[in-house]
Amino acid sequence: MIRLYTMLPSGNSYKVRILLSLLNVPFEKVVIDHERHEHKTPEFRKISPRGEVPVLEIDGTRLWDSSACLVYLARAYGKGQWLPDDPLQMAEVMQWLALAGNEIQFGLQYARRGLKQNRWTAGTLEQGQALGKIALDLLEDRLKSHQWLALERPTIADIACLPYVETAPEAGMDLNPYPSIRAWIARCKALPGWAPR
Amino acid sequence: MIRLYTMLPSGNSYKVRILLSLLNVPFEKVVIDHERHEHKTPEFRKISPRGEVPVLEIDGTRLWDSSACLVYLARAYGKGQWLPDDPLQMAEVMQWLALAGNEIQFGLQYARRGLKQNRWTAGTLEQGQALGKIALDLLEDRLKSHQWLALERPTIADIACLPYVETAPEAGMDLNPYPSIRAWIARCKALPGWAPR
Repeated sequence: MIRLYTMLPSGNSYKVRILLSLLNVPFEKVVIDHERHEHKTPEFRKISPRGEVPVLEIDGTRLWDSSACLVYLARAYGKGQWLPDDPLQMAEVMQWLALAGNEIQFGLQYARRGLKQNRWTAGTLEQGQALGKIALDLLEDRLKSHQWLALERPTIADIACLPYVETAPEAGMDLNPYPSIRAWIARCKALPGWAPR
Repeated sequence: MIRLYTMLPSGNSYKVRILLSLLNVPFEKVVIDHERHEHKTPEFRKISPRGEVPVLEIDGTRLWDSSACLVYLARAYGKGQWLPDDPLQMAEVMQWLALAGNEIQFGLQYARRGLKQNRWTAGTLEQGQALGKIALDLLEDRLKSHQWLALERPTIADIACLPYVETAPEAGMDLNPYPSIRAWIARCKALPGWAPR
């Protein structure tokens, strides 16, 4: 039995919902109340010691990071399509997951959250946008000559990077100078089974 | 042929050196001059578009993130010992790699770098220490009842987390309240083949 703890505006939870949907895996959804900051309560910290969503619960074992959730689902249900066996290919997927957790999260995500909630926990708007620009430039450069981020097919690299890249304009970062990123976003969303937000 | 681009004070490069040493993999080392900020030059950005070390070059393919380097080496040389095949076990390793790239990097690492270099690119000292505390509390909680972070044996989870946890005091964070972390650091460093800094 798979259970997903999620919050409505969480792009990190959205990543996991996308893969659950693409793989057609049934799951139970537990929605955490973000307006009441339920994810920061002592009760929820028993579920996620980090105080964040998503958490994926698999027969009692809990994974408290979105990359870990993607890795689990890809390997348990995806037959190597979304995270391959080959060491170099697996590592190439992994480096885009790292970008998603680093420049994209601390850049694009936190700049957006700061603008929306006026909450700044890891730097200023300018710092977030500077980090975000590193990510966008790197993505554009790769996508100029490739359809997908890591391999010649979609993988969890694309799923991990998309949510907060798509919302970059809400972080004050225009995507118009990034035509290859915009085309890639459209390609991702056209995949059969891609989940709506 | 494996080539590692590294800088002397880089904890992220140290992670890769640790695993290369544990697995006894021969490699060529290219030392980037951090005092001259060589990793931010246009020439080095052709090697790492992110402008960071480590970069691992494998027969011409370049991996520009330390987690990706660890995944490659573990899968290519480690026979499942350092990153197992089982989907849930692989995911459990992965979530600690995510902690290393998130709370540990943006918390413990950047607070330390800020104090050493007076360079603050992603938040203040207080913000870095608050993030770092989430990581230390989580690690201590896990290590109270386990010898290793992800599984009942050392994995790349331990290697990814150790370098900037060990230097937490240089980020202004005392490790005395964390006895299980201190015991784990000693256990890691006693592994046969563990590399010196």
